[in-house]
Amino acid sequence: MMSNPSDSKSQADLSQQLDFLLEADRLKGVERQNHCVHVPRRENTAEHSWHLALFGLVLDLPDGVDRYRVIQMLLLHDLVEIDAGDTFAYDETGHGDKMEREVAAAQRLFGLLPEGQRAVFYRVWQEFEAKETPEARAAAAIDRFQPILLNRYSDDSSWKRHGICRAQVLTRNGIIEHEFPALWARLLQITTEAVEMGKLLP
Amino acid sequence: MMSNPSDSKSQADLSQQLDFLLEADRLKGVERQNHCVHVPRRENTAEHSWHLALFGLVLDLPDGVDRYRVIQMLLLHDLVEIDAGDTFAYDETGHGDKMEREVAAAQRLFGLLPEGQRAVFYRVWQEFEAKETPEARAAAAIDRFQPILLNRYSDDSSWKRHGICRAQVLTRNGIIEHEFPALWARLLQITTEAVEMGKLLP
Repeated sequence: MMSNPSDSKSQADLSQQLDFLLEADRLKGVERQNHCVHVPRRENTAEHSWHLALFGLVLDLPDGVDRYRVIQMLLLHDLVEIDAGDTFAYDETGHGDKMEREVAAAQRLFGLLPEGQRAVFYRVWQEFEAKETPEARAAAAIDRFQPILLNRYSDDSSWKRHGICRAQVLTRNGIIEHEFPALWARLLQITTEAVEMGKLLP
Repeated sequence: MMSNPSDSKSQADLSQQLDFLLEADRLKGVERQNHCVHVPRRENTAEHSWHLALFGLVLDLPDGVDRYRVIQMLLLHDLVEIDAGDTFAYDETGHGDKMEREVAAAQRLFGLLPEGQRAVFYRVWQEFEAKETPEARAAAAIDRFQPILLNRYSDDSSWKRHGICRAQVLTRNGIIEHEFPALWARLLQITTEAVEMGKLLP
């Protein structure tokens, strides 16, 4: 018999998908360190993920990179923050057990999905974290560049609040230099301006 | 001569892309009528767009529908609210000049992009609005279903605040019945529950 939308397997799958999507709503309440540019408050991780996906749609990607897979990773990779919270990029203590906390979060959250989707979504998240494939590296570079742009153009600077210097930004974000040379040139310019504006230590 | 990332055309394109992406940040400040489920405040349109894209990644789509194009529309279609604002689904006065306001917004916003991308992105937005292609219809059905789910599960109900009855919800959202019969069955159940809970007029 052919499957149809009203059969019990489809309805059970849909229930699990909706449970996952309702749980994902929690990401709207996870606060990041950086502020929005045009809205005077911290950015939350849900709107951050949308903004990253838009970068993925708009920017010229390295040759041969599959744009859909980049966007898929950008939409999914931060869901783990629902359980694990946002770890500030330059927080070395927080990064100590970050992977452990995020693996547990990924297992719980993607575990809400129907059996056939769980492993697929978990693998997309793992691929992003490993930063080995061209798509994962492009997605990671975008994820690193966006908060730098926001720090430069918003009224606030999370660098300043945490006493971060330009060399730390350049060291941590080397993946951008390799994946997007044009963005890297812009990053050098932006961080120079940020130092001049007193938003970043020299 | 081959183009390379440091040439002036690439740098000029990148400047325009970043201008567009910085302007897009304003969507984080556009408030919608419905509340989030797990965060006690109204949803903004940027995080709403992320949530919709996640629905697009997770739900079983009608046969033959290109998931990438659905997600692309879900990420882009509400950018016009930066200029035109969010029009409540059941606001008949607001819908009178909605299209005019949104066309002007789409022209301004997508006009920030480099020449080659402007028309492409504008056409994606137009395709969504026309609701004629299978991808546009799937995206529109998702855009209709998500706030219904949020109204049912959040503490607030924008239906209740605006005195909306169940027949209005069913009439306005018929596109879901056609595109996603399984979601429609769920919508019938959700709206029945919402009436019982006093969130929706009978």
